[in-house]
Amino acid sequence: MTDAAPRPTLEAVAARAGVSRATASRVVNGGDGVREPLVERVRRAVEELGYVPNQAARSLVTRRHDAVAVVIAEPETRVFADPFFALQLRGISKELTAHDNQLVLLLTEGRDDHARVGRYLAGGHVDGALVFSLHLDDPLPGLIRRAGVPTVFGGRPDWSDDDAGSDGDGDDRLRVRAAEGEGVNGAGRIGGREGGGRPSDLGGVMYVDSDNRDGARTAVRHLVGLGRTRVAHITGPLDQTSAADRLDGFRDVRVDVDPRLIEESDFTPAGGERAMRELLDRRPDLNAVFAANDLSAAGALRVLRERGLRVPEDVAVIGFDDMLPVADQTDPPLTTVRQDIEEMGRLMARLLLSRLDQRAAPTTATAAADKDAPTGVVLPTTLVRRASA
Amino acid sequence: MTDAAPRPTLEAVAARAGVSRATASRVVNGGDGVREPLVERVRRAVEELGYVPNQAARSLVTRRHDAVAVVIAEPETRVFADPFFALQLRGISKELTAHDNQLVLLLTEGRDDHARVGRYLAGGHVDGALVFSLHLDDPLPGLIRRAGVPTVFGGRPDWSDDDAGSDGDGDDRLRVRAAEGEGVNGAGRIGGREGGGRPSDLGGVMYVDSDNRDGARTAVRHLVGLGRTRVAHITGPLDQTSAADRLDGFRDVRVDVDPRLIEESDFTPAGGERAMRELLDRRPDLNAVFAANDLSAAGALRVLRERGLRVPEDVAVIGFDDMLPVADQTDPPLTTVRQDIEEMGRLMARLLLSRLDQRAAPTTATAAADKDAPTGVVLPTTLVRRASA
Repeated sequence: MTDAAPRPTLEAVAARAGVSRATASRVVNGGDGVREPLVERVRRAVEELGYVPNQAARSLVTRRHDAVAVVIAEPETRVFADPFFALQLRGISKELTAHDNQLVLLLTEGRDDHARVGRYLAGGHVDGALVFSLHLDDPLPGLIRRAGVPTVFGGRPDWSDDDAGSDGDGDDRLRVRAAEGEGVNGAGRIGGREGGGRPSDLGGVMYVDSDNRDGARTAVRHLVGLGRTRVAHITGPLDQTSAADRLDGFRDVRVDVDPRLIEESDFTPAGGERAMRELLDRRPDLNAVFAANDLSAAGALRVLRERGLRVPEDVAVIGFDDMLPVADQTDPPLTTVRQDIEEMGRLMARLLLSRLDQRAAPTTATAAADKDAPTGVVLPTTLVRRASA
Repeated sequence: MTDAAPRPTLEAVAARAGVSRATASRVVNGGDGVREPLVERVRRAVEELGYVPNQAARSLVTRRHDAVAVVIAEPETRVFADPFFALQLRGISKELTAHDNQLVLLLTEGRDDHARVGRYLAGGHVDGALVFSLHLDDPLPGLIRRAGVPTVFGGRPDWSDDDAGSDGDGDDRLRVRAAEGEGVNGAGRIGGREGGGRPSDLGGVMYVDSDNRDGARTAVRHLVGLGRTRVAHITGPLDQTSAADRLDGFRDVRVDVDPRLIEESDFTPAGGERAMRELLDRRPDLNAVFAANDLSAAGALRVLRERGLRVPEDVAVIGFDDMLPVADQTDPPLTTVRQDIEEMGRLMARLLLSRLDQRAAPTTATAAADKDAPTGVVLPTTLVRRASA
């Protein structure tokens, strides 16, 4: 696009499309009240001539609302109780605000409300969506696909093969790949269509994730390096890929682990307490715990203290997240796997906005570029040593 | 509206408006692509005949999105740090979900973003708005008025006389009435246009509030009843009516108070600490503190302990909110003025939905009823005694 050439006018667009200037204008201004074949002709003329409307009109023709929905697939009570979401929202908010986009947080009471969220997304109120905390069997991914809004997921979604290609009314399901021994993206790697695995799973889907599996491996190796041989694992909800990947990482290092050393939990402090009690009842001789997040590690620490066990002397404990002010305020302060939660939010927003910009461009060149766009960005994790291990 | 009479048809509407059935239908289905005078004629015919479209069409003619925006006039970091907002959102979320309305939380980084919020509200993405935590000089009320969306405020807004009648582009300002000696609504009273005061201020504006002034009076009377004669007050931000009203209540009881016993703060724990230090430096002999909310009271308690002062023996402390789990977990547990924050949120949502239902009704009878609708609902407060006073 050179500035030297005169810009094509709206009149030229109208002439090429064979419609009146008023009709062409109406299409450029959103297309309301114009029959679809005419809209199509005008749009084609716009593309062929490389017509660039002024900024205001352009935002109308591209139907940009400068608004992005955030959907957290948890009840609002959890959204406000778990600082993880506040941190991720902080990153998202900063990035969207820097680009003068409105953050539209869609809150729900629970999964029963996800159909309504899908209707809102389909209603043309936002340009795109950022979705996180997906669980297995959640209808959201299918609803979002049908809503047709560009979406970036927080955390790797995992559709089963059957649904990857369909856009019918069937159930869209997430599927957990726990213990299937598949590799994940390397640290910081931007993966397109990966070799191995099932590339069709994630075709066209964009997501930002941490390297959960590698982070878990690092944590468990550290515990083993401390000479701990009876390492237990408090998992997150295994219908989420983040939890399943951390379990995979744990198993990578503890290949023949006694299954009684693994207890499924739910990422909450109360869940961590319950799991710790279970594990101690089953294996009172355990001498290390890897908890799948800091909140459940905090619950585990309380139970260990209650039972008179010293940390780390009797039981070493490692968490995941490095969530502040949680990890630094436990007793003792928590050794944990750090992921940059705020940065993940920021990156999700950045990816979505850049995809929206590509869509808004009035040429067809981006269609090809889009196919090569990265589908997943996986951020590295690091071990942060404090007192608990 | 009787069921016996045959319902007027769309054809009848078209005939009365003097337009084709297709045009009438298009107006009933949203009005897109129809010139404004025709839209007006069809709408009038709909009203005159009492035409009731079927549910789906009706939601289109009334342009209901079944979505309600929530705007908290604070940066998102504060929204997630102060459990007050989580509680109010909980009430709002429950009520909206019960009526299958989507809660759309519009987050911002700060006041600079309020113009964008105004644009979103004006963009036809929601049916109405719930707005709280307004501050003096915030452009939001003016932006909301211009956006033309029905709104219920949390906390009494306070426009100055100059702006009450205008809907031009001028600055719309909130004005604090602190220390003007005006009465507030009695506990639980539903106020229409009150005698005294400036009725034009709140004409047409709906809000839900607690009886902040009466609550403050109760707290301070309790301290005086304990024999405390040197009662200090840590205020909230005085550009908010809730804080100004609590200061008024404090002054109602302590008429000739030494101004050095009053310190303005900001409803945060850190602000409470700062204010407590100021007050102790100025009046080391103070023997009671009324803090304008529980979070600042918690900060004050920490400073008192740090200075070696016993609570309540040396200094009695009362907060405001009865926010759990804050008030019951301070050391010592906090005596405080309880307001039902979740119920306030629920009531805001309920009032808005009922106003939207009135608007959606296709008769003009509601226009008259609307004028008599309550403008403010003020909930009573109660003193909750724990150990700090």
